[in-house]
Amino acid sequence: MEQSKPLHITLIGAGTIGLSFAALHLSTSTSSRPVQITIHDTRPNLEEYIRATLPSYLPEHVKASQILYAQQLNSARRRSIIDRLFANNVLRIATDLGDAVYDADIIQEQGPESLEFKATIWKEVEEFAPSSALLWSSTSGIPASLQSKGMRDPGRLVVVHPYNPPHVMPLLEIVPSSATRPDVVDKTVEFWRGIGREPVVLKKECTGFVANRLAFALFREAIHLVNDGVASVEDIDTVVQASMGPRWAVAGPFKSYHAGGGEGGLKAFFKNIGGTVQECWDDAGKVNVGDGWEDKVFKQTKEAYGVVDVGERDRVTKKVLEAVGEDKLKHIEREMDDTAHVERS
Amino acid sequence: MEQSKPLHITLIGAGTIGLSFAALHLSTSTSSRPVQITIHDTRPNLEEYIRATLPSYLPEHVKASQILYAQQLNSARRRSIIDRLFANNVLRIATDLGDAVYDADIIQEQGPESLEFKATIWKEVEEFAPSSALLWSSTSGIPASLQSKGMRDPGRLVVVHPYNPPHVMPLLEIVPSSATRPDVVDKTVEFWRGIGREPVVLKKECTGFVANRLAFALFREAIHLVNDGVASVEDIDTVVQASMGPRWAVAGPFKSYHAGGGEGGLKAFFKNIGGTVQECWDDAGKVNVGDGWEDKVFKQTKEAYGVVDVGERDRVTKKVLEAVGEDKLKHIEREMDDTAHVERS
Repeated sequence: MEQSKPLHITLIGAGTIGLSFAALHLSTSTSSRPVQITIHDTRPNLEEYIRATLPSYLPEHVKASQILYAQQLNSARRRSIIDRLFANNVLRIATDLGDAVYDADIIQEQGPESLEFKATIWKEVEEFAPSSALLWSSTSGIPASLQSKGMRDPGRLVVVHPYNPPHVMPLLEIVPSSATRPDVVDKTVEFWRGIGREPVVLKKECTGFVANRLAFALFREAIHLVNDGVASVEDIDTVVQASMGPRWAVAGPFKSYHAGGGEGGLKAFFKNIGGTVQECWDDAGKVNVGDGWEDKVFKQTKEAYGVVDVGERDRVTKKVLEAVGEDKLKHIEREMDDTAHVERS
Repeated sequence: MEQSKPLHITLIGAGTIGLSFAALHLSTSTSSRPVQITIHDTRPNLEEYIRATLPSYLPEHVKASQILYAQQLNSARRRSIIDRLFANNVLRIATDLGDAVYDADIIQEQGPESLEFKATIWKEVEEFAPSSALLWSSTSGIPASLQSKGMRDPGRLVVVHPYNPPHVMPLLEIVPSSATRPDVVDKTVEFWRGIGREPVVLKKECTGFVANRLAFALFREAIHLVNDGVASVEDIDTVVQASMGPRWAVAGPFKSYHAGGGEGGLKAFFKNIGGTVQECWDDAGKVNVGDGWEDKVFKQTKEAYGVVDVGERDRVTKKVLEAVGEDKLKHIEREMDDTAHVERS
């Protein structure tokens, strides 16, 4: 049996986002779609850092053998999973950029949030990478239109902004510049859908993209309410965890308020309580960074939580996502059964 | 064996919130803590309406026999659960207010959102109800300080604002006026904690309370982004469902961003990306009700969702809450095991 050529993904930048993506990509490796990961970074002790950080991101059910089997390599020795991935060249380090990208199918960048860094690296990548390779930036704020200005072909670059950490959270904001080619966007969406994630393509570039803008709008009001003495940091978190968090895990705000209006939908919702909505908007806080709320809010948060165990948080988040996802699957199966039943009858 | 006297809860107002509370209270009934519900409303065909609406709110695992057994009443006949609850006086209708409240332990109001209605009804309730009864208003916006102005004892009234629908969502915002007595607040919190809900006491009254202010702040930005053509209604909902929804079901915004700052916490988070946060705040939309975004947004929402199946939404929401809750329980058990282990060793 002939072996499939692995899908080769090169990650530029090995911070927590880079290694989280490495874990995600490795966990999707199958025998019919094996994955090879190259990590390029200039930090000293890169291999040591990867060995220390990557294992905790890999999902429990993924075994080295699973990833390795995908490439019909086998190593029965009891070395650590990372050892085995390195030894079999499924995971490799390339300190030279040309070496890192010359045969890559996808090049995903999560380096420093500096326009200079990104603009420089894309010009170099363009020189060495195959012309068919997809070029993705994980930036949380520097649009593709700026990053790609010095490129020979700015049509190749698209922003693929994850929600942290990407090995857990399903969202990817796909933000093309006006120069990005439609087929690049299509292939990018197809890739993420293919591994079960939720890519959302923005219709135009905007400050902070969508997810952060939405979350920061709520967070601004949360800071205001703590600063104004209406509720504590922990109380605000409890409010969110016991109401809109679980609700919005299942149905986003438009769908929720549309349901809240009954048969009349969102229009009826605003007819009923539009006055209250506007009162809340009029009374909303307008805190700014550096206004002076910081000491109080940072102190309360630190006292409430110390250092957060993100491993525990992410483990429970996965269960929540499974609950929503399994339910979606069951629902689809039921609908298919219903259809089959109708067809039989 | 002597029978416990049922906890008698009178619900004033039998809209969807009232019946949702009825279902919640009935589902908590046990043999050691039986519950009796009286519903007071002036709508015509009240009993018919209750028979049509209440059953769908009752959780699947609650059987009539369970509620009835709690009061050592038994009816083996195959009548509907509501028939049996009515027949055994566990659920009763009182069209006369005095009759509804004269021996109530708790009086919970969810009538029309009108100050006149609420101020009037509390004066009447005060006249007929036992002096020990707790008085709760489910209002989403009329503070206790206004509702209680004409009462002989304004210290008795407290707002208990649910997140819709209360038979599913754990949050209750407890909003005392400056006149509300501390023991009333304490007993109210104790009641809700006792049945496994999440009461949060606000430190002072404010427009719209906390949950709606937070949610409406995010929703304002969501409307702006749709109106501005950055993303569609469905895309915004997908973004929220695939990122902050599941995240905030597990850890609220302060805890999440505190974790995002690593060991430096929220302070480090703002040091790292405070600039981006402020840019998003500066660029945030300031849409208002009646601005002209309505046609576009209502139309897109209706086309996307038609009439939402809230039964399906609530079923999945319960699974999400179970995932978070079970995990909390398991975690506590593990910690107890660890403690036991330490104590043994």
